[in-house]
Amino acid sequence: MRDVAIVGAGMTRFGKYMDRGLKDLSREAVDAALDSAGVDKADLEIAVVGNAAAGLATGQECIRAQVILRDYGIDKIPMVNTENACASSSTALQVAWLYVASGMYDVALALGVEKMYSDDKAKVMATFGAGTDVEQLKQIMQQLKPPSEKKAGAESGAGKSRSVFMDIYAAGARAHMARHGTTKEQFAQVAVKSHQNGSLNPHAQYQERYSLEEILASPPVAEPLTRLMCAPIGDGAAAAIVVSDAKARQYTTKPVWIRGTALVSGSDHPGEDGGTGARAAQSAFEMAGMTPADVDVAEVHDASAPAELMLYEELGFCAEGEGGRLVDEGVTTIGGRLPVNTSGGMVSKGHPVGATGISQAYEIFLQLRGEAGDRQVKDASVGMTHNGGGMVRGEAAATTVHVFSV
Amino acid sequence: MRDVAIVGAGMTRFGKYMDRGLKDLSREAVDAALDSAGVDKADLEIAVVGNAAAGLATGQECIRAQVILRDYGIDKIPMVNTENACASSSTALQVAWLYVASGMYDVALALGVEKMYSDDKAKVMATFGAGTDVEQLKQIMQQLKPPSEKKAGAESGAGKSRSVFMDIYAAGARAHMARHGTTKEQFAQVAVKSHQNGSLNPHAQYQERYSLEEILASPPVAEPLTRLMCAPIGDGAAAAIVVSDAKARQYTTKPVWIRGTALVSGSDHPGEDGGTGARAAQSAFEMAGMTPADVDVAEVHDASAPAELMLYEELGFCAEGEGGRLVDEGVTTIGGRLPVNTSGGMVSKGHPVGATGISQAYEIFLQLRGEAGDRQVKDASVGMTHNGGGMVRGEAAATTVHVFSV
Repeated sequence: MRDVAIVGAGMTRFGKYMDRGLKDLSREAVDAALDSAGVDKADLEIAVVGNAAAGLATGQECIRAQVILRDYGIDKIPMVNTENACASSSTALQVAWLYVASGMYDVALALGVEKMYSDDKAKVMATFGAGTDVEQLKQIMQQLKPPSEKKAGAESGAGKSRSVFMDIYAAGARAHMARHGTTKEQFAQVAVKSHQNGSLNPHAQYQERYSLEEILASPPVAEPLTRLMCAPIGDGAAAAIVVSDAKARQYTTKPVWIRGTALVSGSDHPGEDGGTGARAAQSAFEMAGMTPADVDVAEVHDASAPAELMLYEELGFCAEGEGGRLVDEGVTTIGGRLPVNTSGGMVSKGHPVGATGISQAYEIFLQLRGEAGDRQVKDASVGMTHNGGGMVRGEAAATTVHVFSV
Repeated sequence: MRDVAIVGAGMTRFGKYMDRGLKDLSREAVDAALDSAGVDKADLEIAVVGNAAAGLATGQECIRAQVILRDYGIDKIPMVNTENACASSSTALQVAWLYVASGMYDVALALGVEKMYSDDKAKVMATFGAGTDVEQLKQIMQQLKPPSEKKAGAESGAGKSRSVFMDIYAAGARAHMARHGTTKEQFAQVAVKSHQNGSLNPHAQYQERYSLEEILASPPVAEPLTRLMCAPIGDGAAAAIVVSDAKARQYTTKPVWIRGTALVSGSDHPGEDGGTGARAAQSAFEMAGMTPADVDVAEVHDASAPAELMLYEELGFCAEGEGGRLVDEGVTTIGGRLPVNTSGGMVSKGHPVGATGISQAYEIFLQLRGEAGDRQVKDASVGMTHNGGGMVRGEAAATTVHVFSV
């Protein structure tokens, strides 16, 4: 397969946009990506678009790419709509990469877009439950409640779907605390870092800094999670221009190469078969001819702050049980040995689900080109992204790892 | 890129299955495909799944592949969900082909599945409008009405969405009649052929034969369409096992090679830029190193019988305006020079939208292996499929052509 690079990337600020739709958000992100690449939209040969919830949010169940891009004047090229819940657009990025790496096309647009805020609360609630088997949603929720809440008895699926994923993350965090002695303060410190980084990112949904005490004192979600440790919902779009090696050298002197890409699903329990993050990382690093030790900067799927800490271990940044130590030593802060979620991560940058995957690639694109401004990681030349989407019977539905280098 | 073949294919009978869901239908199709290939499900390395309307039909908006395949025991492999309205699974087939052709995987499952029948009429209605820009649906419908109906004034979008695509097909048929002198009887004769072929296909939703008079006398839909000229809605699934050349030779002595594959979108008006069917065919035949003259058997997107006749011209089976003559001469009947829709086509076999694309490939797979039973085309060695999905502002959203040979 051919070498493939990202030569342009762009995104909207993530946030709450009651007056903006999928088309408008996408246009801003695609414009920014094309501008940064110096590529004209007429040069695009294929578009691969990731979205998870437009059916719920706007009723647009089908041909989302074509509907979103048509009025923008992108309408004569093949389009593929991909969906993998919160990993929808990192999946789109792999498929775009594949179309180019295989030699089928030279210039691809990968776009992720999501609209979650709505005047209709029921729509917002529905999107939370969408990333799992809807038939089993109620059952899963009951299983994952902390013991103290179980006594209250079963609640309705619809009313409780807001926090089903946070319940899952909280259960994982409690298990990590029990097994490895990880503390709530260490989890909270990850959130301190995320909000600190987000305060330096003009595209972050939340740009305020918080002290450890403030994180811990924010409203409880599910023990040990507090609200400031959890990713918010949001609206937004992110786009990348993915091109062949020959085109890359034509368009820019600073291509960001996609060195490895992996998509996996299945068990997400470390110790059984290594978890999807571990398997995806292993596969992507093998393709890249690299190891986790080569990574200078990483964006990982921190739907909650504890998830980020646990991912340090799963992705091979440290040994099992050592995630808390990494936090204590500041290894993953900007200025540390391996800065993670320099964008602010999902906790601070926000998490419009279908847009998240490519927004991660956008951050790595900036970092590896030295264009990340106040949050620039010095001399970063290798980056990676990790993005997870959906869950079926407690197993991850789609986990991606992409490895990049200049 | 590597040569890629289909070594197994299977499908459910298309029909109305009030008691069966996406999982159950998929299992039957995948079982049949694996059986015909002699491939164990543990050998699958990736699954690409096309579906258009599960969000509307079952509320399963996200990770449909993972939810559908998990309980069947396929849960540790990467899965990509693709959507392109009625072309969702022919798009899935291209993406599966790409994963294998590129060398990334050796054994892929491509699956298309759809559930359209429901006790909830509103759900059924909603699926009809899903294949276009929902914001513009009402406006399009008004524009496409025959003059006699326009006077009645605008109707509500929801109530009329059932026939929006049939209105589009009817408008195209009327234009063809005006321009080329094509007759309603010629369109009806295509439907006679479809139902005749469907009567020979145990997987067809409708297996009854009709005379020309019966087709013409069936209830009118939109002039010149009658009900028996139109594809019904349906439930069903179709699957194909897509493998590398080395694996193909290992699994079977009768691989069906995917020689060309194209996905296009954009203008669908012949004479402007050739229409998406023409462009897709040109691209796929070029990849295959073939021409329409090489084709022995074809499955084309006959959402209505007139569409099939017009596709004869657009796909290069005859010159513009000569579609009626092909019908008169019986060229596209089984036994003719170029049999089209030997399966019964969408008009008789049925059209569970996300399943249609791979069901077409299933028919070609049988025909090229000489396994099509009573509807076998003698000595067929080259086949093609044409599948269209969705429409935005009157332009085709996604059109695929795949070319196969033994």
